[in-house]
Amino acid sequence: MEQFLLKVEGMSCGHCKAAVESALKEIGVETATVNLEAGTVDVAFDPQRLSIGQVKEAIEEAGYDVA
Amino acid sequence: MEQFLLKVEGMSCGHCKAAVESALKEIGVETATVNLEAGTVDVAFDPQRLSIGQVKEAIEEAGYDVA
Repeated sequence: MEQFLLKVEGMSCGHCKAAVESALKEIGVETATVNLEAGTVDVAFDPQRLSIGQVKEAIEEAGYDVA
Repeated sequence: MEQFLLKVEGMSCGHCKAAVESALKEIGVETATVNLEAGTVDVAFDPQRLSIGQVKEAIEEAGYDVA
């Protein structure tokens, strides 16, 4: 399992938190936790199934910018 | 038809806009338009079907504070 703490811009409310966490779970991450105050996403995934590029892409497709 | 411009706190993004407009349409308002920058909801409804109290209640139930 690999774990990353990503800085993500534009997440402003509980809907945004749910949208990002749900987008990440859909692509098969193990865990995804948004911290709205910090503007971060803590994500863990199996590197044999996903790449960090795919994780970032899923966040961006949900409408947010990965810093 | 009656029209009100309500000041609403806590609407921060497109999801919030959609949540408030959808909650108001569910209770039967004629039109509901959120302006995120201004923090307002412009709402029109038939006073024989709804009261302003019901409109405010729907917004609060969606999770936002009517000022």
